[in-house]
Amino acid sequence: MSTPSSLDVLIEALRCLPGVGPKSAQRMAFHLLQRDQRGAARLATALGHALEVLRHCSRCNTFCEDEVCARCASPQRDASQLCVVEMPSDLAMLEQTHSYHGLYYVLMGRLSPLDGIGPRELGLEKFLGRACDGAVQEVILATNFTNEGEATAHMISELLKSRGIKVSRIARGIPVGGELEHTDSGTIAQALVERRSL
Amino acid sequence: MSTPSSLDVLIEALRCLPGVGPKSAQRMAFHLLQRDQRGAARLATALGHALEVLRHCSRCNTFCEDEVCARCASPQRDASQLCVVEMPSDLAMLEQTHSYHGLYYVLMGRLSPLDGIGPRELGLEKFLGRACDGAVQEVILATNFTNEGEATAHMISELLKSRGIKVSRIARGIPVGGELEHTDSGTIAQALVERRSL
Repeated sequence: MSTPSSLDVLIEALRCLPGVGPKSAQRMAFHLLQRDQRGAARLATALGHALEVLRHCSRCNTFCEDEVCARCASPQRDASQLCVVEMPSDLAMLEQTHSYHGLYYVLMGRLSPLDGIGPRELGLEKFLGRACDGAVQEVILATNFTNEGEATAHMISELLKSRGIKVSRIARGIPVGGELEHTDSGTIAQALVERRSL
Repeated sequence: MSTPSSLDVLIEALRCLPGVGPKSAQRMAFHLLQRDQRGAARLATALGHALEVLRHCSRCNTFCEDEVCARCASPQRDASQLCVVEMPSDLAMLEQTHSYHGLYYVLMGRLSPLDGIGPRELGLEKFLGRACDGAVQEVILATNFTNEGEATAHMISELLKSRGIKVSRIARGIPVGGELEHTDSGTIAQALVERRSL
């Protein structure tokens, strides 16, 4: 007289989503089955299709449907600069600035020892192969300024410097339009340390 | 040079989940594709299977894989009592008490005019058919004590009383083991109003 097994299986399967525990999974399953069967069917199809066709660009490691993504294949981009980001969403933010014309490398994560993600899990081998292919003259580290992003940037910079490649890190400081009064002291301190001579 | 279409489609499809906006959908898609492809495949299969085999019990309206669920088909249950709950999870909570031996009706929701869920969307017709089948002598309303659950209970009780069926509502009051000092005043007031003579 318990829950039908296919419902149990669905609830359990929904727990693979990040941040979804038993209660949310149950709520999601009921919502999909009761209120949005079309959405559920679309989701099942989209998942299956994405798993089938998506892979990683052999050059920049982002998700793409071909061997090399359109950006890496484009002759318009400056192949001498390689910008390292954590996720495709970070790449999208940088592209929105229209101020960078080099290529990217997407780590698809960050070093996170607590989650068991070390240099090997992050695939730093593949990255080093890409960064040391001869065309790249500068690697720009644009990982987040969180503890994990900083640790990732530090490790990559050590690895590249030992191979004689120029490495830079995007700047920390007061946001554009920002007022000192409303900026946290850590950011102000960093802006002082990293001041530019004019 | 934008996101591959199958990734876009997946991110959009994930937004059918309750409480999932564009940012969470993106995070979920990246997590599934990058860290848990097996989980994603399991989820796609479980969704497809659940959509295919799950339907509503023709008697109690809960999810089941047959025409009538095992509980409704059981001769051990007291067919003269019908307990109305909002969701299958509420039914499960009541069953855990081992103190109710009648049958259930699962509304699969509650009246919620703001979400466009009125008596018709809630399928009250089907419920009235079930409650007025002749065998039911008492309908016990066990919807939640939220505004929406209360409104639902009120509407059902009006509908049933006009058909001459005995209706009751589960009691409000101080929780078992509860101390007055740590109970909210609304609950204490209600416990006073609904006091039992000894």
